[in-house]
Amino acid sequence: MIKIAVLGCGRIGAMHAANIGAHRNARLAAVQDINEAAARAVASSTGARVMGSAAEVFSSPDVDAVLIATATDTHADLLEQAVAAGKPVLCEKPIDLSLARVKRCAEVIHGTRLPIQLGFVRRFDPGHKAVRDAVKAGDIGDLHQVVVTSRDPGLAPEAYLKVSGGIFRDMTIHDFDMARFILGEEPEWVTAMGSRLVAPALMEKLGDFDTVTVVMRTASGKQAIITNSRESLYGYDQRVEAFGSKGMAISQNQRPNQMRLSGKGYSNQAAPLLHFFIERYKEAFDAEIDAFVEAVETNQTPVVGFEDGQKALTLAEAALKSIAEGRAVKVSEVA
Amino acid sequence: MIKIAVLGCGRIGAMHAANIGAHRNARLAAVQDINEAAARAVASSTGARVMGSAAEVFSSPDVDAVLIATATDTHADLLEQAVAAGKPVLCEKPIDLSLARVKRCAEVIHGTRLPIQLGFVRRFDPGHKAVRDAVKAGDIGDLHQVVVTSRDPGLAPEAYLKVSGGIFRDMTIHDFDMARFILGEEPEWVTAMGSRLVAPALMEKLGDFDTVTVVMRTASGKQAIITNSRESLYGYDQRVEAFGSKGMAISQNQRPNQMRLSGKGYSNQAAPLLHFFIERYKEAFDAEIDAFVEAVETNQTPVVGFEDGQKALTLAEAALKSIAEGRAVKVSEVA
Amino acid sequence: MIKIAVLGCGRIGAMHAANIGAHRNARLAAVQDINEAAARAVASSTGARVMGSAAEVFSSPDVDAVLIATATDTHADLLEQAVAAGKPVLCEKPIDLSLARVKRCAEVIHGTRLPIQLGFVRRFDPGHKAVRDAVKAGDIGDLHQVVVTSRDPGLAPEAYLKVSGGIFRDMTIHDFDMARFILGEEPEWVTAMGSRLVAPALMEKLGDFDTVTVVMRTASGKQAIITNSRESLYGYDQRVEAFGSKGMAISQNQRPNQMRLSGKGYSNQAAPLLHFFIERYKEAFDAEIDAFVEAVETNQTPVVGFEDGQKALTLAEAALKSIAEGRAVKVSEVA
Amino acid sequence: MIKIAVLGCGRIGAMHAANIGAHRNARLAAVQDINEAAARAVASSTGARVMGSAAEVFSSPDVDAVLIATATDTHADLLEQAVAAGKPVLCEKPIDLSLARVKRCAEVIHGTRLPIQLGFVRRFDPGHKAVRDAVKAGDIGDLHQVVVTSRDPGLAPEAYLKVSGGIFRDMTIHDFDMARFILGEEPEWVTAMGSRLVAPALMEKLGDFDTVTVVMRTASGKQAIITNSRESLYGYDQRVEAFGSKGMAISQNQRPNQMRLSGKGYSNQAAPLLHFFIERYKEAFDAEIDAFVEAVETNQTPVVGFEDGQKALTLAEAALKSIAEGRAVKVSEVA
Repeated sequence: MIKIAVLGCGRIGAMHAANIGAHRNARLAAVQDINEAAARAVASSTGARVMGSAAEVFSSPDVDAVLIATATDTHADLLEQAVAAGKPVLCEKPIDLSLARVKRCAEVIHGTRLPIQLGFVRRFDPGHKAVRDAVKAGDIGDLHQVVVTSRDPGLAPEAYLKVSGGIFRDMTIHDFDMARFILGEEPEWVTAMGSRLVAPALMEKLGDFDTVTVVMRTASGKQAIITNSRESLYGYDQRVEAFGSKGMAISQNQRPNQMRLSGKGYSNQAAPLLHFFIERYKEAFDAEIDAFVEAVETNQTPVVGFEDGQKALTLAEAALKSIAEGRAVKVSEVA
Repeated sequence: MIKIAVLGCGRIGAMHAANIGAHRNARLAAVQDINEAAARAVASSTGARVMGSAAEVFSSPDVDAVLIATATDTHADLLEQAVAAGKPVLCEKPIDLSLARVKRCAEVIHGTRLPIQLGFVRRFDPGHKAVRDAVKAGDIGDLHQVVVTSRDPGLAPEAYLKVSGGIFRDMTIHDFDMARFILGEEPEWVTAMGSRLVAPALMEKLGDFDTVTVVMRTASGKQAIITNSRESLYGYDQRVEAFGSKGMAISQNQRPNQMRLSGKGYSNQAAPLLHFFIERYKEAFDAEIDAFVEAVETNQTPVVGFEDGQKALTLAEAALKSIAEGRAVKVSEVA
Repeated sequence: MIKIAVLGCGRIGAMHAANIGAHRNARLAAVQDINEAAARAVASSTGARVMGSAAEVFSSPDVDAVLIATATDTHADLLEQAVAAGKPVLCEKPIDLSLARVKRCAEVIHGTRLPIQLGFVRRFDPGHKAVRDAVKAGDIGDLHQVVVTSRDPGLAPEAYLKVSGGIFRDMTIHDFDMARFILGEEPEWVTAMGSRLVAPALMEKLGDFDTVTVVMRTASGKQAIITNSRESLYGYDQRVEAFGSKGMAISQNQRPNQMRLSGKGYSNQAAPLLHFFIERYKEAFDAEIDAFVEAVETNQTPVVGFEDGQKALTLAEAALKSIAEGRAVKVSEVA
Repeated sequence: MIKIAVLGCGRIGAMHAANIGAHRNARLAAVQDINEAAARAVASSTGARVMGSAAEVFSSPDVDAVLIATATDTHADLLEQAVAAGKPVLCEKPIDLSLARVKRCAEVIHGTRLPIQLGFVRRFDPGHKAVRDAVKAGDIGDLHQVVVTSRDPGLAPEAYLKVSGGIFRDMTIHDFDMARFILGEEPEWVTAMGSRLVAPALMEKLGDFDTVTVVMRTASGKQAIITNSRESLYGYDQRVEAFGSKGMAISQNQRPNQMRLSGKGYSNQAAPLLHFFIERYKEAFDAEIDAFVEAVETNQTPVVGFEDGQKALTLAEAALKSIAEGRAVKVSEVA
């Protein structure tokens, strides 16, 4: 049994805590949050112990590994402390909004053999993973184009958006990782376009976009296309398409059930898509913990690690630069 | 060029006339209807000649073959006259509402080598035919169950229903043929259940049913299930499923287009199904004429003939007897 | 926290034990099996206590309620004992293979106010339940036809089939319940047809069928059609269709993921259906425990109870009689 | 009856000739081709008269309108001659590969009131048109993103590719028009990426691409994304998606039939997509002739005209410039 502590007891931390608590090979050793009431709430529903500080967690012999689900600006510090304390880490994305900070963190933890896993949960989605598996197995031949559609159900509150780092670092970051996951090689060129269509005034104020498209190309010519929107009224639109020399694999949307209704004037109507990441990626969040537990048990490199976090953030930088300068940006310019 | 005359210029006759007129290897030689205005209307849109009587059609050297689309109670007489006149026939279903009359007709035309094709148009539907082809090719192994769903978009007028012969002879007749087509062997036992749910008072008055289910079994144990309704608000529901030892083939419904709409509270909504047989079986009606023209050109036995009409009607009789007596009826009892 | 004991630690008992163990409002108090090794295995993975006998379970103050997942021929006895001991029961289907025994059991427990829930798990499936909800909400108008497709992935071993009570009592029993669930009223007439197509020799030997169709009609004329096969190579085929005066609701099949593959010669290929009940009805098994826990907590009548088990078995009897006598059987004849 | 002459009797001209011949309000007055054998072949199957030269067609009083389906480099000349002769024109795309030539042609025909229709046939596709209609009707709210997927079934021969004008002018041209059709406003910025993945050596030699992505933005921020490939092994992949503030409309792919096959290891497999434009856009080609006949009959401006051809070509120029310069190109730079 791997004893895992959860740092950060907000929505996603609470979910992870429950998943760890229900895992057959893991135990929820402790929970911690700077808001102690949040930690206590999670503790009471999971039976876990509350620890008073991250330092207490890192020094506790009862903690084998930590899951970092705190505010983004604390990720890098906590990650460095965890590594210093010899605890394997599952860290929510992004590592930091600043690529410079991420690079410093990389230097600090350089050489560690501890399993460090990044929270790119979508890699564990059965459908998206089946696309990747089909690509790897050669089912679609040589890969030519990857198309990632990703639309959030609704705009986050202004308070959140203000500190989110902008759509590319906050939302598209998952799609950059998904594109890399399916591509199996690194994008070399990035172009991006941004629009303000969902909440034009707010986006103008924040200097952000709510509707973006990114096109990337690898050295061998493979293309990846990402389309994002901050608001989708029919639910959380999450699709991945891989097209190759021998065929195509698509991971389609999911719905809460397979009921289809037909009546006067319409047919085959389905429920809206699963609402948001907690519902949509439920199986993936479980599988992510599975993978982390296994990496800790076997002391192996996780399937998605620190470097993946750094590379996705680099692509976000490239996308921002592409918009600012109205041109294709070579990834090496910003790496 | 095969010169074909159309007898009967109602809705279905007019459609056949247009299809023949557009056929690359056929010419619409003449049209005829006891209501001469109807014949003239079709003639004016197709450029065909109007003939004054069926007798004129049968004796005309300008007519190579005839298509009978008149009122049901004239089918058998006209079919006999056509055979006597040496004209190949494509006859709309049913041959007659009376099995006794059909048997007499069979005797009258016995031994003819003329191509006689029955209007079981659904055999020519690309989807249903693909199911049959998959069964024949062994794609689903040994056939076990055939499920035919067939629901008309709306109740026909009382005047029509009164002379229709009842749901089994008028509507289910197509499904009996489809079941035989997919089964590839003859049903031996028939059970049926009838309900009055769409228009209870009218059905009571007519001694008819609007909602029926038929289950049949062949000597080898293969089963065929038919469900019918006289009214389906989402359109003309036409599906065929074949299940076997190695898999399943389904011919799904068709819609006017492949557009799918998603919005607040729903996703993937499609248009209603294609309205009725003229729209739904458009390709099949074309292919039916193709098959007839080819049978006439090559003087071969059509893929669906007189005997198929007789056998479908026999199954209708068995279904009626099954309801009347509340038991499984052996087809040989009514044949 | 409701403390639940699981009697019977075979495949389904072990699954229930795990689900109870993970439930937020329930605790797995104990497990028991006449094969103590089986009980110990479940205990070791769940941390539950092993009890030596059903009597120990029923007399234990640490047990609030029991889940009966033992061999079928012990269900009725255990159910009676549980009621005598004042323990609410969740009993796997069927109550017994003998309708006479079920009736005696009904008399024995007559008047109890304890929650007694029957394991008709499919009522809790999100898709099937959505169909029922659509019917109740009037979304499809007045209900006319219910079509239940249910095909097991593969034939059970002979040893199991021998004591299963035959396909109607063992397999169709779930579909009888599903039909009643969707219909919202009782079938009055039953007709059935059985074939031996999957394993003819074995079925002949057992006097059983592997491929059956049942058609039922309520007093008001509503129809329910069930098709079953003991072997489906593409997975566990589980569909429910409700057709009414205003439309249709279908609960379609589920697959392990939403990936669709296209290549030379084909398109849109999906994975096989989810294998069998453990995978297919995973959410439903969870919801079933939820419902039981809630019924126990609030001391309310469960949504699916003893009477539902008795009525489904009565329909199985009617189906057998229908086949034996080749006629429609009135349910009151066998009730 | 509108008497239409077809200039150019290659594959697409022959198809148009047949469609005109079968049209209820049109007559195929004449066919012409510099290869007279090709013209005679079409004439023999349609019964049309062969004319010896375009000049003969333009001067004939028996010709009400012309359809230009000749080699691309003759389109502009013939279009100018037709207008000079007072004949309405349906001209296959593109008007010319040179934007300069198209502009001269525009000047030459400036002020004409003759109906001039461009062969952007996809606007008449029922599914794509339904998307446009949904957008216009406000069904998806304010439009935000248009995604056009367009993949040819297989690479055209080198001889064709050499004179095609390159993928943007030859293939993407249709998608530029589709994007404009759905957008309802003009793209202002264009970025493009090209790869050589299907036939790298040949593309290198031709200075062309076989795999491209284009992203465009209108002044109001609406985005249009086009992905193209010259080879798709599962058939002609043709999809259009419109996403807006209230929902999404997708025009999905079409298949030759609705049969779906399930077996060991897979389920729901469909046939490959309809092969290529003749099959895929059959209904659209018919509707295109309908629209032209109606425009000629009523002397109205066609729904898709000369300007649409010019604008699509301008977008192709912008895409080429974007790739050459690695930057977003303002459409006004090349217009």
